[in-house]
Amino acid sequence: MSDLKDKIMIAVRDDFAAIEKALAENMNPYFDLVSQVAGHILFAGGKRLRPLLMVLCARLCGYTGHQAARFSIIFEFLHTASLLHDDLVDGAEMRRGRQVANQKWDNSTAVLTGDFLLARGLSIAAATGLREVIETIAQITENMSQGEIRQLEKKGDISLTENDYLEVIRCKTAVLFQGACRTGALVAGENADMVQALTDYGYHLGLAFQMADDLLDYTQDFGSLGKHAGADLREGKLTLPLIHALSRAPGKDKKRMVAIIANPDFTPTEFTDLVEMLKCHGGIAYTEAQAAAHIKKAKQMLDPFDNSVTKGTLADIADYALVRNA
Amino acid sequence: MSDLKDKIMIAVRDDFAAIEKALAENMNPYFDLVSQVAGHILFAGGKRLRPLLMVLCARLCGYTGHQAARFSIIFEFLHTASLLHDDLVDGAEMRRGRQVANQKWDNSTAVLTGDFLLARGLSIAAATGLREVIETIAQITENMSQGEIRQLEKKGDISLTENDYLEVIRCKTAVLFQGACRTGALVAGENADMVQALTDYGYHLGLAFQMADDLLDYTQDFGSLGKHAGADLREGKLTLPLIHALSRAPGKDKKRMVAIIANPDFTPTEFTDLVEMLKCHGGIAYTEAQAAAHIKKAKQMLDPFDNSVTKGTLADIADYALVRNA
Repeated sequence: MSDLKDKIMIAVRDDFAAIEKALAENMNPYFDLVSQVAGHILFAGGKRLRPLLMVLCARLCGYTGHQAARFSIIFEFLHTASLLHDDLVDGAEMRRGRQVANQKWDNSTAVLTGDFLLARGLSIAAATGLREVIETIAQITENMSQGEIRQLEKKGDISLTENDYLEVIRCKTAVLFQGACRTGALVAGENADMVQALTDYGYHLGLAFQMADDLLDYTQDFGSLGKHAGADLREGKLTLPLIHALSRAPGKDKKRMVAIIANPDFTPTEFTDLVEMLKCHGGIAYTEAQAAAHIKKAKQMLDPFDNSVTKGTLADIADYALVRNA
Repeated sequence: MSDLKDKIMIAVRDDFAAIEKALAENMNPYFDLVSQVAGHILFAGGKRLRPLLMVLCARLCGYTGHQAARFSIIFEFLHTASLLHDDLVDGAEMRRGRQVANQKWDNSTAVLTGDFLLARGLSIAAATGLREVIETIAQITENMSQGEIRQLEKKGDISLTENDYLEVIRCKTAVLFQGACRTGALVAGENADMVQALTDYGYHLGLAFQMADDLLDYTQDFGSLGKHAGADLREGKLTLPLIHALSRAPGKDKKRMVAIIANPDFTPTEFTDLVEMLKCHGGIAYTEAQAAAHIKKAKQMLDPFDNSVTKGTLADIADYALVRNA
């Protein structure tokens, strides 16, 4: 699958460089501590997926101006702000292979730097002068905090339904993908139908991306994500593989699963048992199928657009979201 | 001085009620945890000074529409978001006479609820459809986080200058006052000169308000602010009374002051000694004089406006900022 990744990387090489440049320029005027803390996470080798989606969607809609990269970093700032606040929430130790900011510095510094990046994102949004873009950004920040709060509220709650789960991942992940794609279309001055098509592309891609991410918690080994397998579960986050399996498992297995979930200090053996039960009761396969269905829908949203290299790259990104293993 | 307070309270009674109503309506559609956490601090008897300033400035500029209270709550949301994040930063235990949210719930809940309120504020700003208002709000959030970070960075730094201090309080306090007053004028469609006059009124009022607040740390007893006297100092926040006294004190007194500052576990006796030295070396008197000078400037900014009840109330608020003791 690394062929697909390579293909995408080559296709977006210039955009990626323009985004990196815009990020570095934007952080430049700020004083030391902000640059250090923000830079610690901003320049730790992120994929820049969200800004790339904005730039690609703008191009797909015929945008030829020079502002796309400059505006696109809004979505990296919002994403990074949310990571800084989430790491505090999650009590995680590593992020992108580095120590999390709230441990390297402290909670306060991490929170305030997150606030600063969020504010920077909003300032750039205001600078677009496009009311719909500004509304989109405001809506994203509102939804993301709501999603995180809801997730926190439902921590360890085994009665969580698939719909609850979908609402959480829509808010905490899909709205940002959706907003990035929508903004690309808006900046290009695209008509309402096409704006909606790309908004929907981002929505389905975001849902699938998060489902694939949640699957990784149960299917990967230690190290590749910079966190332990089972990390989500240890934090009390119930995701689709588990929710689906719990809804299918007969009494005895369900009881055993609930017992493992209830104890955040589960052993590696217990975790392996749990993964076996997830497989046995269809949790993994169902989540894979749901993610694949959303990727299919995402790609369908590209149908109204003329064929182009950019359209191909957006389709490739959708395919890759499903198979990435890191 | 409670006569002045009573006079203001009577003058703004209807506006205050309209703001309370707008706040309650705005929080209504949100799910339990958000309403609870936000409500814990939002409805703990705040003075609503920032929204009131916006409403009064709009009226001073001839605004007769019905949106002022609805828009004004932006400033209470931004203020509350910053309190939620600051309490985490400061390690405070009480706020407005109640246990702080990060202790009643936890750090994560407090941070995310702050994010949510910030986002709500931005959504309301976007709803004004006024580009300058949106830019003002984005600028406020950016400045506030920068001010807080700078304050954190300078924690316990006895080389802090009066200019450093002014920059911190401008960012963390004055920009919000400034933005509220500016937004009032913008919503009313006022001309650029008058918008600037009210922006400056808010700026000077905000600086004086923070100086008066910082004085309270050295001049009040336990209880009235819901925090101990000396609380700022215990958190390593060096404010103007101390900065000025340090710059004036001869070697021996300076050494003694630095020793007390260096130990956050100073005794009540040591703190009393410190306050005596602040008085002796002019720190209290200088800060009072600076605050008074900013209040004078704030009131001068009202000169271009025709005399009216509203203008009188804005002048009264400026006077009260100087003498309030809680």
